[in-house]
Amino acid sequence: MHQIAVLAGDGIGREIVPEAVAVLETVAAKYHYSLEFRTGLVSEDAYEKYGHPLPPATLELCRNSEAVLLGAVGSPKMDQLPPELRPERAALLPLRKELGLFANLRPVKVYDPLIGASTLKPEAVQGINILILRELTGGLYFGPKKRERLADGSEQALDTLVYSTPEIERIGRLAFSAARARRGKLVSVDKANVLESSRLWRETMVRLAPEYPEVDLSHMYVDNCAMQLVRWPGQFDVIVTENTFGDILSDQASMLAGSLGMLPSASLGGKVALYEPSHGSAPDIAGKDLANPLATILSAAMMLRHSFGLEEGARAIEAAVAQVLDDGFRTPDLMTEGMTRVGTQAMGREVRIR
Amino acid sequence: MHQIAVLAGDGIGREIVPEAVAVLETVAAKYHYSLEFRTGLVSEDAYEKYGHPLPPATLELCRNSEAVLLGAVGSPKMDQLPPELRPERAALLPLRKELGLFANLRPVKVYDPLIGASTLKPEAVQGINILILRELTGGLYFGPKKRERLADGSEQALDTLVYSTPEIERIGRLAFSAARARRGKLVSVDKANVLESSRLWRETMVRLAPEYPEVDLSHMYVDNCAMQLVRWPGQFDVIVTENTFGDILSDQASMLAGSLGMLPSASLGGKVALYEPSHGSAPDIAGKDLANPLATILSAAMMLRHSFGLEEGARAIEAAVAQVLDDGFRTPDLMTEGMTRVGTQAMGREVRIR
Ligand SMILES: CC(C)[C@H](C(=O)O)[C@@H](O)C(=O)O
Ligand SMILES: CC(C)[C@H](C(=O)O)[C@@H](O)C(=O)O
Repeated sequence: MHQIAVLAGDGIGREIVPEAVAVLETVAAKYHYSLEFRTGLVSEDAYEKYGHPLPPATLELCRNSEAVLLGAVGSPKMDQLPPELRPERAALLPLRKELGLFANLRPVKVYDPLIGASTLKPEAVQGINILILRELTGGLYFGPKKRERLADGSEQALDTLVYSTPEIERIGRLAFSAARARRGKLVSVDKANVLESSRLWRETMVRLAPEYPEVDLSHMYVDNCAMQLVRWPGQFDVIVTENTFGDILSDQASMLAGSLGMLPSASLGGKVALYEPSHGSAPDIAGKDLANPLATILSAAMMLRHSFGLEEGARAIEAAVAQVLDDGFRTPDLMTEGMTRVGTQAMGREVRIR
Repeated sequence: MHQIAVLAGDGIGREIVPEAVAVLETVAAKYHYSLEFRTGLVSEDAYEKYGHPLPPATLELCRNSEAVLLGAVGSPKMDQLPPELRPERAALLPLRKELGLFANLRPVKVYDPLIGASTLKPEAVQGINILILRELTGGLYFGPKKRERLADGSEQALDTLVYSTPEIERIGRLAFSAARARRGKLVSVDKANVLESSRLWRETMVRLAPEYPEVDLSHMYVDNCAMQLVRWPGQFDVIVTENTFGDILSDQASMLAGSLGMLPSASLGGKVALYEPSHGSAPDIAGKDLANPLATILSAAMMLRHSFGLEEGARAIEAAVAQVLDDGFRTPDLMTEGMTRVGTQAMGREVRIR
């Protein structure tokens, strides 16, 4: 029996998460998996009921599950709160830290039928299948911060980018393993010509390399990587990098697929893993049956694979998604002439019946 | 009499800089400007002669000039040296710091005849004219760094991202002024939902805004900006951001123009300003009359404008470059069917005769 904490969150999270749960139920029935879903409140709902976007009950629920399925957080109402109560800082970051989720996996796969959806030319994005691994609990986001008034009356603010060898090793090993299971090409991204933390990062990656003789490791400066992801994205298989660089590059790379609505993510590292679409809560289209549930559904497939080792079910979901696209079904974010326009629920249904 | 320090540097720098100097001489003759060129050694040549990539004589030469025209640094030979003697760290960063060049201006303009050169679709890049302002002497690159051994034997490395209000104000004012002189739209990029330095950055920008009522200021998170630069680059006029974010975003944005060979840059802030192409020294094509000199020539135009206030000459150069492209002349990096292929020198000549 696999226990899954389900946190729909805000906005379209409330529509897309139920579709993903329904897909998981369908797969569970077909392959005789036992999955147990337990819902929890996060962000606005949680704040209204408990006065905090991540109440202890929700954190407990997550801790006592094997995996968490998260929709999205962020709403106009929550944006009015002081920064330290907003869902990003009060729920998302603590959830990552508390659950020890040091590795964020963001696969960017361009499906053939969607090849025209990107602003990049079809020949630049065809066949793109990149896995970005972002370190998620270290670096600038979590290092010591300070604000102080200087003698001359001006202010100074400071963030710290810190990494220790064990922190780099654990994400490094994950990246090498992932590359070994894929096409064997690993690009480690840093700014070792300027940053001390990047030099330690690079040294550590180089030290790990002999343990993975099947993997071809290379290094790229982050500025160059941002350029190469536009110039020739087809050169990449697996990219591994620190928190901030990974934040920027993974969002940039997501545009190769045309719509954020297609991009799943997994955050791993601790006993419990977290799965969520790469996109946000999109308050502007919430509640209108317009949102694309595929990123969440594909995140559920990642859950079956990474948390439960249920590869067959994961593939079945991924194949169904590819089939639905082949058959011409499109939510509004992907709609083009000649295709069949469907809403959130109909899209979920199309996946389930395949 | 305007004094210009000319540092060709490594690789193709030795071919493209003479073309830019020749263009400046032509313009000077036409408009009766008096420009004096004084050459200096940097990187490999300097290292061979003086044992350091930025010898005191070169630094003095720069200090005593009104502007510096730099080719590019970086060569296979210099890459063999220990990091602290490599030209990036031993010449480029100190030059920025010593000359007080806190603002890096990177205009990204897509010329109509080159609209097909990008991996982005023509409709996504047509008419793109973005100015990226990167803070250049603060932040992670220059903040305190540390490497230490921890009690458990592992190592820890640390960089510091520091900004003070005056540092943000000066680049902020420059950005507001630039936006006012252009289309009036300024996007300040930060990660204020996570970083303390970004919060100070944002507060400072907001505080400056009332002084520039003609400018429409908005804020964007850096991850979103990296995404928007692919999704819809046409939305941007001026972007201002801190050192590391600017490094990444300006290199990414350069790909909108298809080739780095078209992109000039200016670094301002002190008494002396520095102008250089956005690309590197390209050792692989050096000495073969293959390099595109246009980025350096356009950097020379920026020099006339920003250092000497010679707007007429600046425009004349920019118009000549546009005309050469309209007339179908292309260096190899831009060559397409039906165009006239030219080398570095011929390209320089075509610009001069227009
Ligand atoms: C909301 C923010 C803190 C978060 C991050 O940068 O980690 C988001 O951008 C993401 O990528 O999940
Ligand atoms: C060489 C490096 C230090 C430099 C930087 O990042 O500033 C380069 O990438 C640039 O953008 O000029």
